[in-house]
Amino acid sequence: MNNIRIVLVNTSHPGNIGGVARAMKNMSVERLYLVDPLHFPSADATARASGADDVLANAVICETLDEAVADCQFVVGTSDRNRSLSWPVLDARACAERALDEGRAGEVAIVFGRENSGMSNEELERCHYLVQIPTNPDFSSLNLAAAVQVVCYELLMASRGEQSPDLAEEVRELVGQGEMESFYDHLQTTLVELKFLDPSHPKLLMRRLRRLFARARVDRQEMNILRGVLSAVEGKKLHK
Amino acid sequence: MNNIRIVLVNTSHPGNIGGVARAMKNMSVERLYLVDPLHFPSADATARASGADDVLANAVICETLDEAVADCQFVVGTSDRNRSLSWPVLDARACAERALDEGRAGEVAIVFGRENSGMSNEELERCHYLVQIPTNPDFSSLNLAAAVQVVCYELLMASRGEQSPDLAEEVRELVGQGEMESFYDHLQTTLVELKFLDPSHPKLLMRRLRRLFARARVDRQEMNILRGVLSAVEGKKLHK
Repeated sequence: MNNIRIVLVNTSHPGNIGGVARAMKNMSVERLYLVDPLHFPSADATARASGADDVLANAVICETLDEAVADCQFVVGTSDRNRSLSWPVLDARACAERALDEGRAGEVAIVFGRENSGMSNEELERCHYLVQIPTNPDFSSLNLAAAVQVVCYELLMASRGEQSPDLAEEVRELVGQGEMESFYDHLQTTLVELKFLDPSHPKLLMRRLRRLFARARVDRQEMNILRGVLSAVEGKKLHK
Repeated sequence: MNNIRIVLVNTSHPGNIGGVARAMKNMSVERLYLVDPLHFPSADATARASGADDVLANAVICETLDEAVADCQFVVGTSDRNRSLSWPVLDARACAERALDEGRAGEVAIVFGRENSGMSNEELERCHYLVQIPTNPDFSSLNLAAAVQVVCYELLMASRGEQSPDLAEEVRELVGQGEMESFYDHLQTTLVELKFLDPSHPKLLMRRLRRLFARARVDRQEMNILRGVLSAVEGKKLHK
């Protein structure tokens, strides 16, 4: 990720620069290049950055796109889908994987154009690929910070690789089937005592309850609770 | 996608509601529910929506979260990773796949909390899963519209890769969250009557039971059985 920079070309609204800085830092992408920004630095940028001040403070200001990507071995531009320019296109996910791959060997730039007019054809031609973010075809214009958010999110996801698909899933000590069978026996006895279950035809109802608890995968704490409830129901009977 | 709603709880800044509407529509997610918004409708919301006016105009205003998700069979909450509450977690990508899957059979809600304080534990307990957006651990707080952007982007990506549903899976009519809440009320009352639950400290035990049943995903037949068991336990008390 350290070799990947985000380049903004001719941004008009400094608030958008701040929004981009926040979106980048949220996703651990920290290198921002600004090509000829209309207003920068700016209080609006700092306000929207909401604490990503370091990204703004370390931003590199360039006069031209050529200068901003001169040392990059891999440059990706952004474009909506209706460009006449025919150019190799990656979607955001494929772009992120490719950018990380390239970033192992050298510098990578992902370039975002002006708020209203995007990138010119001359600018796009400096890119190896265009990245397109899949959108609603009838409402496809993303806010600049939103577009950077999605691309940087995909960079973070790609950098995590396949190592942690299951976030923070708690470790639960599941009970074995033997204990489940004892529980079902206890449950059946209790339901018969409650006259909720006909002891001559217990199977269908018990099967449905088994299916419910089997789906849930009961852990030790939960089993203690379930057994406790059954004992409390029985206890009430004893006190009758 | 048509069965998936985005629910915002107690949003303070109407501009954020507009930003969310734009982010949603960009990704073809169009159903917005607002739980007790501080200011709505609002010119700020319309301005930030940048043309997603229809999403705002069609937004459903509710007084409580329970009302907003009552007819939903699958509810996902959002939370930063440092919650004390231990609850099943999906990342945004897995959440999108799961939500689309569930959306084939019924209504799905993805719930976003307040800008500053997120969702309360009581609100999170209404959810089957929490979704976490992977972020920079040192700068993890996403803007509300940015969080919705990422989740809706993953929904759009998942919907593009969608395959035909697994026909082997039995069709079960799952009950909505409103019915689950009534069941939890009934269960709590019964457990208090059994003196199994201390009515002054019901939360921890009820949370564990909620988690168990949320994992199991209860269908109509099973709900009838569970309610029948509770009524039988109560009936026994009446005959004492």
